[in-house]
This record gives sequence, C-alpha cells and structure tokens, in this order.
Amino acid sequence: MAAAPSERTRVKRLNKRAKYDAETVHGILDAMPVCSVGYVFKGAPFVTTTLQWREGDHIFWHGSAASRMLEACENAEVCVSVSIIDGFVMARSAFNHSCNYRSVMVFGTARKITDPAEKELRLRNFTEQLWPGRWDMLRPVTAKEIKATTVLTLALDESSAKVRNGPPGDDEEDYALPIWAGVIPVRTQILPSTDDPRLIPGLTPPPHIGSFKFG
Amino acid sequence: MAAAPSERTRVKRLNKRAKYDAETVHGILDAMPVCSVGYVFKGAPFVTTTLQWREGDHIFWHGSAASRMLEACENAEVCVSVSIIDGFVMARSAFNHSCNYRSVMVFGTARKITDPAEKELRLRNFTEQLWPGRWDMLRPVTAKEIKATTVLTLALDESSAKVRNGPPGDDEEDYALPIWAGVIPVRTQILPSTDDPRLIPGLTPPPHIGSFKFG
Repeated sequence: MAAAPSERTRVKRLNKRAKYDAETVHGILDAMPVCSVGYVFKGAPFVTTTLQWREGDHIFWHGSAASRMLEACENAEVCVSVSIIDGFVMARSAFNHSCNYRSVMVFGTARKITDPAEKELRLRNFTEQLWPGRWDMLRPVTAKEIKATTVLTLALDESSAKVRNGPPGDDEEDYALPIWAGVIPVRTQILPSTDDPRLIPGLTPPPHIGSFKFG
Repeated sequence: MAAAPSERTRVKRLNKRAKYDAETVHGILDAMPVCSVGYVFKGAPFVTTTLQWREGDHIFWHGSAASRMLEACENAEVCVSVSIIDGFVMARSAFNHSCNYRSVMVFGTARKITDPAEKELRLRNFTEQLWPGRWDMLRPVTAKEIKATTVLTLALDESSAKVRNGPPGDDEEDYALPIWAGVIPVRTQILPSTDDPRLIPGLTPPPHIGSFKFG
C-alpha cells in the first residue's frame, strides 16, 4: 500500500479508509469532474465548485479570465476536493450512521497555463474526455475566446483518497437489536438529452451524448 | 429581488445568475445535505466534504470531536459551499458549454455547540429531517457518544445562491450552424435499499427508507 506523500496529505481520521495509490486517486478524479477548489482570498477561505479533468499526474480546471477564483488561485496554495457519494449507511445507533463515498483531496500550488496553444489543447482534451468527437464538430474556438479563458493546473504529488463502502459497522451488542439497518445506495443518473428549442430541425444527438457517463 | 448581504457574498461573475433571497438559499440547502467546508489551517486552504442541515437561519454540521477539520473551523472564518449539478449544457461552440446547477455559498464564523442537550437535539433534528421517525427507533445515544461528537453552526447572514437552468446561450450567428445542441440532464438517483448482512431475519425497511429524497 502506498504511503502518504506529505504530512498534510496523510488522512488522520478513520485512516483505514485512506488510499494513496495513483490508481485509486486517478479513478475517482476520472469518474467525477465536479470538484471544490479551496483557496484563501484576503485571509479568508473560499470554496468554488467547478469541473476538473486529469491528464497524467496533473489536474486542470478553467474559467473566465475575469474570475476572482482563478486569479486568487494562480501561484497560490489550493486544496481541490472531489467527492462521490455512493450511499447512506443506516446503522442501529445514530452514532454509527455513515456514508459510503469515494473522495480525493489534492494540495499544492496552482499554476496558470500561459501558452495559448497549450491552453487550447488542454481545453480540447477536457471536452474530448467527456464527449469524444465533440470538439471537431463544434464551431472552432477563436483566439479571443482562448484569451478570455484561464486554465489552471495542479500536480497530483500531494493527493490522497478516502473510500468507504459496505454495510454499517455497529457496536457488537447492537446487532441483536430489532432495528432495520442497511445501505441506501445513491448514484448520479444521466437522463435522456433535451434538444435546444432553437435546434435546426432534423439534427439528432451525436453518439457522445448518449454514451456520456458521470459519477 | 434581495440584495447581496455583504461584499464578499456578492456574486461577481455572471451575476444575472445570483439570488440572495432566503427561499432560494434555504431550498438549495434543504435539497442537498452534502457540502464542502472551506477553512484555513496553518495558513493553507482545506476543503472537507461533510453533511450539513439547516434549522431556521443557521446551518449545522458535525463530526468526530477528534476531527482536525472541526477543530480548525471553531471560531474561525469558514466558507460552506453546496452545489447540485442539474445538467450539462451542450452549446454550438466549446466556449458556450456550461452546466445547469443550483449552488449556495455561506461565509462566516463557525461556532461550536457546547451544551450536551442542545448537541443531542441538533443531531436528532439532523436525523429526523433526513429520515422522519428514525431517531426514536434507534438504540439511544449515550453521553459518551455526544461527548465524542462535535457540532458546529454557521449563521446564514452572509449567503448567496447562484442558479443556472435552461438551454445553451450560443452566439447569435452560431444558431444557424448544423451542430446538435441541448442539455444532458443529470440527477441523484436513490436506489432500493440493501439489508445489512447481519440483519435479524424478518426485519423490513421502515417507511423513511423508501421515502428518502436527496439532491
């Protein structure tokens, strides 16, 4: 089992749930683009929800070049958190209720991608990972749009995963009680796509819409 | 329309999506217990995922009394963020792709509930809001368990919501392009509960399990 890459990365609470191997960390990041970016702005904590994507041992996120979040994150310490809730764990005591989940925390200094060609490539990769084939079907990006977009990146050097699954862990003497216990599983459901009301008649969703997975 | 309660609460980017009224803020908090708590620990940002619940104009969250997160949050500035992703908005250009979402940010100073009786009441309310009737069916909480649990609270004075819904907003000239555009809706799906393998034979899930809603 891989060790914690740094002290702040080491999971303190319920550390039997901790995992530090790249396969686990990458698997969770790849399954869930939605992330929370934590940063400090004028001494106070901020959390912004955005989408991340992974390429190798880095994650990336993007937004408007006018974004306060992206500006505050550049060359600054950030904490990026991804969590997938898999279920509610219903125990025989309130105390032993829990959640099943897969989560990742990444710490480090966020860097801005400055080269416009690299920026465009990263954005293309982001789109293609979610919807293969979509980028080339779209109206091409313009230099102005690339300029108006900031892309940040963070190395996965300091990352950890925490995973819980399975049934409740009740106190041994509580198992004899006549109380229903178990798990309520939850998952993200993708519903059938809806056409833009202004869609040109006759156009149908490309395959990457129907095959989209998330969570 | 309600105004932003403070400067840091005012939504800067795409502020037509901002809402500051209690009904919108409360509705989002009540629909989604999963939250990200941002805090500063030794000068660096941390984000911890946990569950929040609302009572009136305060939110609450809890955890182990030994938790680094809860200790770092007590009497400290925090940012609590809740986000519900409702769909992926597929435009005719990469630039105009977006998400439909409902999100809330709350800023302020977290306080610890110190009175054991209030702590127990808050935890009871948390459980009862999610699963009405469950608290009284469970093995009663012990004084030791209450002592081992920290409950924090945060006023909703400084909160804001940001909501996007509807079809893509493409550049006017792009609507003529033969590119499929629309929305891929997503939602949280509750699956049928699974019994604990150690369940006493013959016990069936109480009504609050089947009626559970989330997201």
